[in-house]
Amino acid sequence: MDYKAPLRDISFVLDHVAPIAELAACEDFAHADRETVVGVLEEAARFCEEVVAPTNRDGDSEGSQLRDGRVVTPASFKRAYEQYVAAGWGTLSHPVEFGGGGFPTLVAVAFKELFTSANMAFSLGPLLTTGAVELMTAHCDEEQQQLFLPRMVTGEWTGTMNLTEPQAGSDVGAVATRAEPQADGTYRIKGQKIFITYGDHDLTDQIIHLVLARTPDAPVGTKGISCFLVPKFLFDADGTLGERNDVTVVSVEHKMGIHGSPTCVMAFGEESDGAVGYLIGEPNRGMSYMFTMMNDARLGVGVQGLSIAERAYQQAAAYAKERRQGRAPDGRKGEQSAIIEHADVRRMLMTMKAYIEAMRALCLVNAHATDLAHHHPDTMVREEQRKLADLLTPLSKAWSTDLGVELTSLAVQIHGGMGYIEETGVAQHYRDARIAPIYEGTNGIQALDLVSRKLPYDGGAFVKGFLAQMADTATSLPHELSDIGERLAAAVNFLDEATNHLFANAANPVEAFAGATPYARMFGQTVGGWLLARSAAAARAQMAAGADPADQAHLEAKIATARFYADQLLPMVMGLMPAVTAPASELFAVGIDQLG
Amino acid sequence: MDYKAPLRDISFVLDHVAPIAELAACEDFAHADRETVVGVLEEAARFCEEVVAPTNRDGDSEGSQLRDGRVVTPASFKRAYEQYVAAGWGTLSHPVEFGGGGFPTLVAVAFKELFTSANMAFSLGPLLTTGAVELMTAHCDEEQQQLFLPRMVTGEWTGTMNLTEPQAGSDVGAVATRAEPQADGTYRIKGQKIFITYGDHDLTDQIIHLVLARTPDAPVGTKGISCFLVPKFLFDADGTLGERNDVTVVSVEHKMGIHGSPTCVMAFGEESDGAVGYLIGEPNRGMSYMFTMMNDARLGVGVQGLSIAERAYQQAAAYAKERRQGRAPDGRKGEQSAIIEHADVRRMLMTMKAYIEAMRALCLVNAHATDLAHHHPDTMVREEQRKLADLLTPLSKAWSTDLGVELTSLAVQIHGGMGYIEETGVAQHYRDARIAPIYEGTNGIQALDLVSRKLPYDGGAFVKGFLAQMADTATSLPHELSDIGERLAAAVNFLDEATNHLFANAANPVEAFAGATPYARMFGQTVGGWLLARSAAAARAQMAAGADPADQAHLEAKIATARFYADQLLPMVMGLMPAVTAPASELFAVGIDQLG
Repeated sequence: MDYKAPLRDISFVLDHVAPIAELAACEDFAHADRETVVGVLEEAARFCEEVVAPTNRDGDSEGSQLRDGRVVTPASFKRAYEQYVAAGWGTLSHPVEFGGGGFPTLVAVAFKELFTSANMAFSLGPLLTTGAVELMTAHCDEEQQQLFLPRMVTGEWTGTMNLTEPQAGSDVGAVATRAEPQADGTYRIKGQKIFITYGDHDLTDQIIHLVLARTPDAPVGTKGISCFLVPKFLFDADGTLGERNDVTVVSVEHKMGIHGSPTCVMAFGEESDGAVGYLIGEPNRGMSYMFTMMNDARLGVGVQGLSIAERAYQQAAAYAKERRQGRAPDGRKGEQSAIIEHADVRRMLMTMKAYIEAMRALCLVNAHATDLAHHHPDTMVREEQRKLADLLTPLSKAWSTDLGVELTSLAVQIHGGMGYIEETGVAQHYRDARIAPIYEGTNGIQALDLVSRKLPYDGGAFVKGFLAQMADTATSLPHELSDIGERLAAAVNFLDEATNHLFANAANPVEAFAGATPYARMFGQTVGGWLLARSAAAARAQMAAGADPADQAHLEAKIATARFYADQLLPMVMGLMPAVTAPASELFAVGIDQLG
Repeated sequence: MDYKAPLRDISFVLDHVAPIAELAACEDFAHADRETVVGVLEEAARFCEEVVAPTNRDGDSEGSQLRDGRVVTPASFKRAYEQYVAAGWGTLSHPVEFGGGGFPTLVAVAFKELFTSANMAFSLGPLLTTGAVELMTAHCDEEQQQLFLPRMVTGEWTGTMNLTEPQAGSDVGAVATRAEPQADGTYRIKGQKIFITYGDHDLTDQIIHLVLARTPDAPVGTKGISCFLVPKFLFDADGTLGERNDVTVVSVEHKMGIHGSPTCVMAFGEESDGAVGYLIGEPNRGMSYMFTMMNDARLGVGVQGLSIAERAYQQAAAYAKERRQGRAPDGRKGEQSAIIEHADVRRMLMTMKAYIEAMRALCLVNAHATDLAHHHPDTMVREEQRKLADLLTPLSKAWSTDLGVELTSLAVQIHGGMGYIEETGVAQHYRDARIAPIYEGTNGIQALDLVSRKLPYDGGAFVKGFLAQMADTATSLPHELSDIGERLAAAVNFLDEATNHLFANAANPVEAFAGATPYARMFGQTVGGWLLARSAAAARAQMAAGADPADQAHLEAKIATARFYADQLLPMVMGLMPAVTAPASELFAVGIDQLG
């Protein structure tokens, strides 16, 4: 199944919803004008379509394997990765001083969409490396940066994140890996880590592990965790690799999906008095350093929901145009109709299309806010945009990844029996998509983050202001879109009421936590409706201004998609409302011994 | 992961919601009193827990394989199947005259739940055999019945259903397999069939294929399809097997799940002038014969949604009690809480529990209606119950199998990262569950069946009467449950409004079809609420009558579960309403070239 990068849809968002032009106010992005960015994305589309997308099925059926203590990735991955490094795709948004392209996160997220649609399992190595680079750019000393970053920015060396241990998953504070300080200023790391993505592989010679561990006498919990650099190979001052560090792969997990991505159990210092590690920044600050890259990593996982849904949607639409079964009410007598002519199949495709466009807009608006938060010259703007990015991040992550699962399921359904056969390829998307609601903070954790950390910003005034902004959009839509505006206004009202309920119960965390998941869904659903309403308004303005006739159908589709969403998907917020406001006691009314 | 048959929950339904006692009015079921049935189910529980459940993981990892033209099933399947035949579980609901147990469908469905929870892939062979026996009991001549049925009733021989061809899936009328009449009264069958469950296997010596095919000059479409018996081995009058018939396995599909169940491409008559086949009943009546067993088969697939959800729920609840992460708001300081203490995990478990109890009640009420429709002495009762069974069948199938997917997904989520690892076993449930919304009529087809075939019964009066019955329950609940009654009444009102909308648009099939899927979900969701409300009322009555203190917590849980469902799950019908009533044009407003 071919993949075609949806450049026209992405450009529409960059022009009208998360305007790349607004980033011109940031001196750092002077080189990232619209024309340059579109050129970069066109090049990225070619790379993802032609080089990466063809590795997706192979990667799934071959998988990454542990052989003689080393991880062997699928054969096609090595060729694609060489081209990834050679073309410099890894450098896109990294700092220019370390060889990066210095492009906005907005562009990096657009690239991530294409790259992940092309092959999610393949994209994870670079995703983790990017996270490591961000953390190291913010917190490593200059010597470490000069030594590591130029090679990691290109992808010549990759990075990993070693947080999880058997007893420490969502509860990172329970980390038990030890770090003993040495006379020479280094540390010896001892412990086991699980679920380490690309913990080992054969795509590069060197791997830099970022490892959370405790120094002796560190305080318990999250306040006693430090962050260490632990290279796979020791090396000298100019980066020439020397002997192996004591870092070994214990096993590679057999997973439901993303088979190409090696998920490793890693042992540090098991065969010696510890793996050699270098402290990043100060002791006991590891968790706060992790938070530096948390937003970007969570947004990156949100993009996975979007990307897999988009690829599955393309495959389902192609199948629905080709596959003929039954006769649609206005089909020709004696002929089977293409199933895309059946209302129910059309509903599934429209549901996919509408949610995908809403997710894409959300992820790009989130990225846009991140860029302004870091690069806008005005402190006030930076501060407001930081809060916006913080508010949107759990939505990008949880809403998009839950939808990734729901929409790949629809894509399977459209394929009928063929969808259940692995060779068709759509089952892979469904299996791959299922990890995204789990990792990088489960979606339950995202909902808690939204309710307990983000809603309280400015004593609640920030989120209220955001809701008011959505309500403004609803009332200021042009007359022809007023039906969409009414639906949006109704949804925002419900969300406002739900928000008030949570504020009223803020003193009692159990109450707030109990409604968090349905509230987060309501919020995502409403933001999606808001962004599509804005898309519709932009499309209408373009048409009124006399759009190129070649764009007419595309712009009309934007409006029709927004209307479908407003009429048929957005009303879900009504149905979720009672679950937000029900008392927490209702969740606990059935005793533990009556469960299971 | 151990499986424990939920006998107490099943008995509760058989006592209060789909009363086994009411079947006493049917002479055929004189022997199936409550005590006997409970004894049978206790025995079935032991068999399913101890013999079948342990084969589930093996069956998934080993899978059924094609070797040298024959299908080899997982090693553990052979031992379990021998015991299945020896203990006579296959005979349960089949006619006494052919060696069956003559038990009600109600009991057969309760057994099916346990059997499918234990191993869905294993259960499919017997499920298909049961369907074949039903069709043959209704339509074969006596000679055929005497020859085939005694061996098929026990499971000594198995049966298959050969409907689908590459161009004929949902569109069965497009079947192209040919049947040439011979001078001796037999036929020669030529054609290829796909997606044939247990099309070949090594569990029994003989397999009886029921094959849809066209005789020369048969009318086009569904009116020209005949049904044939095609045995794997030819045999003589006393059933002694002779030479192979020309029936071959072309390939076995690689599927996302139910790996233990061989899904075969079958070739009939490819190496000769045709496989030997025997006509069932009259020519061109094949489709109507298939409909004989369609309701039971669809209900059987609905049970799969229930069964897989139940098994995944048991596993998730056990994990949530054991796994410790973070500290719940009232947890002990410095200690990790079991994740079942976290509100969000509890929400997932309660969602599973509530839906599972609703699905179980629905499937058993559906079976109860089927029994009365066939066996009640009063024609009027039979007729009314037949309509009820017909109305409920697409709901049992579509609602339960969609929920099977949703709830196994929650079970994966509760497991966090471990849920994505195949060895944990919960991923298998998620993969297994995904086929059920597809086969035996996709859920889109079920929704169309509901809207276009069932709603018109008695000019709409039948469904309106059913809605009125649900509304009656809502208003007649005891005072202590009046909050549940209000929620139920509101949902029935919405459903009534949606039903009126469909009636008003009945002349225009596109409009009715466009809203069919959200309407079916609304309907299932409401029926679920109605059945749980009835459960709550029954539990309360029992408590008022002075229940055994050992049952107190169980009965209280029934009420709490119904309340959770009414307050937090049932309101979804509000959110679905606009999708039912939106004009069909909204689904078609985006042109085909703008999709994908």
